[in-house]
Amino acid sequence: MKRFVYADNAATTRVSEEVVAAMLPYFSEQYGNASSPYRFGQASKEAIQKAREQVAAALGAEKPLPNRLPEVFFTSCGTESDNWALKGVMHAMAKRGKRHLITTNFEHHAILHSAQALEKEGFSVTYLPVDHEGLITPEQVADAIREDTALVSVLYANNEIGTLLPIPEIGAVCHDRGVLFHTDAVQAVGNVPIDVKAQHIDLLSLSGHKLHAPKGIGALYIRKGVVLPSLIDGGAQEFKHRAGTENVPYIVGLGTAIEAACRDIPARAARLQAMRDRLIDGILERIPHARLNGSRTRRLPGNVNFSFEGIEGEGMLLWLDQEGICASSGSACTSGDLDPSHVLLAIGLPHGVAHGSLRLSLGDDNTMEDVDYILEKLPPIVERLRAMSPVWERILAGEPVE
Amino acid sequence: MKRFVYADNAATTRVSEEVVAAMLPYFSEQYGNASSPYRFGQASKEAIQKAREQVAAALGAEKPLPNRLPEVFFTSCGTESDNWALKGVMHAMAKRGKRHLITTNFEHHAILHSAQALEKEGFSVTYLPVDHEGLITPEQVADAIREDTALVSVLYANNEIGTLLPIPEIGAVCHDRGVLFHTDAVQAVGNVPIDVKAQHIDLLSLSGHKLHAPKGIGALYIRKGVVLPSLIDGGAQEFKHRAGTENVPYIVGLGTAIEAACRDIPARAARLQAMRDRLIDGILERIPHARLNGSRTRRLPGNVNFSFEGIEGEGMLLWLDQEGICASSGSACTSGDLDPSHVLLAIGLPHGVAHGSLRLSLGDDNTMEDVDYILEKLPPIVERLRAMSPVWERILAGEPVE
Repeated sequence: MKRFVYADNAATTRVSEEVVAAMLPYFSEQYGNASSPYRFGQASKEAIQKAREQVAAALGAEKPLPNRLPEVFFTSCGTESDNWALKGVMHAMAKRGKRHLITTNFEHHAILHSAQALEKEGFSVTYLPVDHEGLITPEQVADAIREDTALVSVLYANNEIGTLLPIPEIGAVCHDRGVLFHTDAVQAVGNVPIDVKAQHIDLLSLSGHKLHAPKGIGALYIRKGVVLPSLIDGGAQEFKHRAGTENVPYIVGLGTAIEAACRDIPARAARLQAMRDRLIDGILERIPHARLNGSRTRRLPGNVNFSFEGIEGEGMLLWLDQEGICASSGSACTSGDLDPSHVLLAIGLPHGVAHGSLRLSLGDDNTMEDVDYILEKLPPIVERLRAMSPVWERILAGEPVE
Repeated sequence: MKRFVYADNAATTRVSEEVVAAMLPYFSEQYGNASSPYRFGQASKEAIQKAREQVAAALGAEKPLPNRLPEVFFTSCGTESDNWALKGVMHAMAKRGKRHLITTNFEHHAILHSAQALEKEGFSVTYLPVDHEGLITPEQVADAIREDTALVSVLYANNEIGTLLPIPEIGAVCHDRGVLFHTDAVQAVGNVPIDVKAQHIDLLSLSGHKLHAPKGIGALYIRKGVVLPSLIDGGAQEFKHRAGTENVPYIVGLGTAIEAACRDIPARAARLQAMRDRLIDGILERIPHARLNGSRTRRLPGNVNFSFEGIEGEGMLLWLDQEGICASSGSACTSGDLDPSHVLLAIGLPHGVAHGSLRLSLGDDNTMEDVDYILEKLPPIVERLRAMSPVWERILAGEPVE
């Protein structure tokens, strides 16, 4: 029987009923401007305060006090948070003569393109190469730190292949050397336990729509004492750190979603991992010449990423779509690009193999039945595409095809 | 009988039932990522396309074609649009040696603080002074244009005193002189007819939450041919102009809201004007020493702004709040500041008078009964505050008090 199986939770998630219910009153009933002094406005301000407490608690940040500078600031998305962190810190530190940024070569484009924008302004950027699993070592970071290094930015978990990086260890190296440390934790929050204080994190970006809040809300954690200019100038909102009338419904939604996602991370992760591992094992069993990308163990609980030699990812997605399965090839943010994923190239895949990759990202709404459905539908699709492939016979014969 | 009268529609508006209904399916049912190639994602993309058409139609921009560079780009708010327009154009034009920006001294802070940020980077800014009604002339603009002027940015309608500026005439001057023209039309869209082509507008900022869409969505119109770098770098969303996963529900909400607001602007404006004029006349009749700020005729249809000598605006707001009336003193975006409004100072009010100002902004949900309720409750509040004022007797005696 045909099902609808949404297996693209790393691209975006369904907004949960709990989040919708929390947001709804703020559209047409409690719609006051949070900056307005009358009670109707102050009720919105209190709702924001509560959400800020929820986000701070989820990250191990300081509990925000009313009307005191907090450590959590709301933004319009994870991408804005990344832009703000990188551009803000680098512009602030340039005044002290520090114009060097360290990051990796397999960050999300929000980081890579911000870094490239900074390079155009004359900043210097080191892109650390990851290994075949997508890992870098704290030693690599230590070796790259220079006199003029202002910031290290390393993603917490890769959005395509799910690799979990050694964030606390990298943070410790940065703090030993007096360098600020930012992490893009968009894919990690809710999936792995995060404690910004214990993990030596100075700035952390997160996004709501990866954890059942809507698309269009994010936050940036900024450790107390770290000073950076605004990315978006204007009114006095967010303690003069981020101008623009506060998006009260989505802020409330993010608070609700992050609290739910972090309520019992081990249990949530265990459930996802069981599905993930059954899917990985099932694919390896059923499909020959399938390559699991990323680490088998240091991996996001819901992430599955394979390359199938001899075929194109796009064709696979179309056939899966016909079967009611939503999956992705690379990241949704780069769709439209015909280039293979920079992440897969970074871990050393040849162009041809990178092109034939498939990400299946499982989420809270998925079930074992979904996994079994994918395992039923995917192998014949790969087989059919390989049968049509001009290079498959040569691959089987062991000839070079690139 | 006590009522709840929301008279702060310039700060934000209630999200309409029509908009909520249009958005709702995009949270938990049609939640696909608009950048994803499968049909579930493409449905989101189509919803964005429809909203883009609605916004373009409301502004007189080119009708956007699928997968072709449009003239309307979605942002997270009017403030982001303003930042992007100013910083983007100035950075782009600096490469051609044009580093001069012209604006006015009574813009919204999204413009003023962006201009100040540019000044810190070494750009040169001219702030044209407005007259006692908040107007500037096209001649002032013409006189200020220099060889190195890149951009003129003048707000369409002032958010505090409602003055409508001579935008088409200013646009014509800019285009005669080969200078780009941006307008912050956040308060104007839906209230006055806008036609970016006929009115010589190259860039226009707008915000959803002033016209019954939610807080957290805006747009920037960029005339075809005008090239500016992104403010927010990352993924390929918005035709590589604005990164970050598209906020599909709010984009759909903005499209719905702007279409509704612009469906019959003359009828909507006439209804608001009738309420506005009754409120202005009623206040002038009932309260002595009341000064109407801004122009009586070149004025937003829902805007009422008075200064009442001898009293503080904050006290007035608290008493109005007790009576169930939501109003403002200056702009919500600057609350927390104890300085008097820069807008009221710009039109020549002394500090003391500017402090005693009150903005009542009427919207579609208001009725004549609301107006009569305000006219019943406001005069005794002003009288009571004046009776407690240390300077009121001196004002009545004609003594100087500042």
